[in-house]
Amino acid sequence: MDNENKVTIHDIAEKAGVSPSTVSRVLRNSAGVAENKRDAVMQAVAELDYRPNIFAQSLASGQSMTIGVLTQNFGSPFYDGILQGILLGLEDSDYWPLFADGRWQPAIEEQSLDLLLDRRVDGIIIIGGQIPEEKLQKVAAKTPLIVVARGLKTMPQHCLYLDNFQAGYQVTKYLLEMGHRDIAHITAPVAYEKTVNDIQKRYEGYQQALRDVGLEPDPRLVVEGNLQQQSGVLAVEMLLSWGRPFSAIFSANDQMVFGARLALFRRGIRVPEDVSLVGFDDESSAAYMVPPLTTAHQPSVQMGQVAAQAILQMINGNSPDLPVFKAELIIRESVSRHR
Amino acid sequence: MDNENKVTIHDIAEKAGVSPSTVSRVLRNSAGVAENKRDAVMQAVAELDYRPNIFAQSLASGQSMTIGVLTQNFGSPFYDGILQGILLGLEDSDYWPLFADGRWQPAIEEQSLDLLLDRRVDGIIIIGGQIPEEKLQKVAAKTPLIVVARGLKTMPQHCLYLDNFQAGYQVTKYLLEMGHRDIAHITAPVAYEKTVNDIQKRYEGYQQALRDVGLEPDPRLVVEGNLQQQSGVLAVEMLLSWGRPFSAIFSANDQMVFGARLALFRRGIRVPEDVSLVGFDDESSAAYMVPPLTTAHQPSVQMGQVAAQAILQMINGNSPDLPVFKAELIIRESVSRHR
Repeated sequence: MDNENKVTIHDIAEKAGVSPSTVSRVLRNSAGVAENKRDAVMQAVAELDYRPNIFAQSLASGQSMTIGVLTQNFGSPFYDGILQGILLGLEDSDYWPLFADGRWQPAIEEQSLDLLLDRRVDGIIIIGGQIPEEKLQKVAAKTPLIVVARGLKTMPQHCLYLDNFQAGYQVTKYLLEMGHRDIAHITAPVAYEKTVNDIQKRYEGYQQALRDVGLEPDPRLVVEGNLQQQSGVLAVEMLLSWGRPFSAIFSANDQMVFGARLALFRRGIRVPEDVSLVGFDDESSAAYMVPPLTTAHQPSVQMGQVAAQAILQMINGNSPDLPVFKAELIIRESVSRHR
Repeated sequence: MDNENKVTIHDIAEKAGVSPSTVSRVLRNSAGVAENKRDAVMQAVAELDYRPNIFAQSLASGQSMTIGVLTQNFGSPFYDGILQGILLGLEDSDYWPLFADGRWQPAIEEQSLDLLLDRRVDGIIIIGGQIPEEKLQKVAAKTPLIVVARGLKTMPQHCLYLDNFQAGYQVTKYLLEMGHRDIAHITAPVAYEKTVNDIQKRYEGYQQALRDVGLEPDPRLVVEGNLQQQSGVLAVEMLLSWGRPFSAIFSANDQMVFGARLALFRRGIRVPEDVSLVGFDDESSAAYMVPPLTTAHQPSVQMGQVAAQAILQMINGNSPDLPVFKAELIIRESVSRHR
């Protein structure tokens, strides 16, 4: 173990009195090595306390016993939840996860993916991101691949995601059932559509729920943020400046709702008495908002666990059944019945 | 690029009409290969679109161009901030980070560290954790090593951490200056001492600041949580049940203060009019608490950046100067002057 970085194949070759390529072939279990040479190599390996580390084993067996995980943003509650689920899902297996962060930047994403592939991971889990589908097809042709939180048209058998349309519909339907008619929505810009397709689907669900009760979506009730808290502050300022009354806000994520809540507090507008709030994600802070936030729970940890189980099945040559996840509306105290 | 897992050294050897070991030597840039053979190999490499992947390069050069990063808990705002800083700090270098999560479990930490070492990382950054100092000494003897958010007595030249005693002192001094005398503190249990030494140091700073103005710390003002939000709720319930009056609470982290804030809201106790609150970390939600939270800012991103720069210096054979970081008190609206 102490020698793992010191003893090289050349040291073994010298000790065993054979060529380095013979050592490689023995470690690789290749045919055609004379038995006495093989014995000499194995003895040298033992004497030099050479630990045939995973790195070398990987070269020999083609198995590295690792799963590469490409995430986009350490610090995103939803993504971090998926990572925690992956860790749990691999816990009882012989596989270890190795993580890389693509930072939502296509060039960095692709290089991070290559970095993991270069480590000869036995499977890849990619969370979100924007790597072109053609590239992912090529990866999937060679390496077991699961894509989480992203739907890919041509490769549904690799995708695990949440039905965001249904979730946006469900949240809006709940607000309608609570008597709200003037429901504002904080979404993310169309320019982000590629990266935040989920957000668009929530918006479409919101629109459909309104239409299904005969309400036409009003563009003066829809404002765009950047998914960060501060943009929720600005969203409320903008909604108020437009002058179109509203009794409830459905935000496409919790972080923007936290900003919205602060902006309402600054204006002396009470939650939920004057304005009801619903978020999306159910990140850990949501239950501790004042008042506690009603929000659509994304089963991020469970999605990570299922992703881990699915990649293990794929490595074993099976085709896992991949469920479409549904959000669960967690009712707390930020919505009141509208009179 | 598409062939990265398919084209082998043997394919190149066949194409170039040389032996596989000649290919290895060319790729390894070894001396003593005839020029015409070298050219044939390089031409075969080009024709076969062989990408000499990092994995193979690593075996050849002993350099993998990667930095292993061992964190403890994806989803911890402070740790995630450090990870983001490491990503920023490596951005302009040729090195890529590979991450593993030790999950605060000693056995998993050690195996994750071995996993990274087995990948022949060129340097290791460990964030927090409990791996015994003797083991870290052995690692540091062979591999450039930086330990973040943990002070190690025998290897200060590898450690980057925050002065938590000074920070706890500073927070308490600020509350004293604002006229508070009955200052409660939410800390973490002594049983956690090994893992949360930082928390103990903040507590000691709190005690010292009180003593420096002639106040004896009162055990009925100190309550233990587990660093999660819910324990902040329980801490306030406990403090109130003990009946010892207090006008301010200093919590050892922000998450517990969010719970405390909700518990006060439930009781109709106003913040900051009735009770002032100060947190620790300045995680991104802190500025959006209602009211916005006064808290000790941990420069987590900056610590990650400095860690990245330091590991690069070490890899280049230099001994970096490692600063001790100081927390910065961010004054928002959760503290009022006590009359």
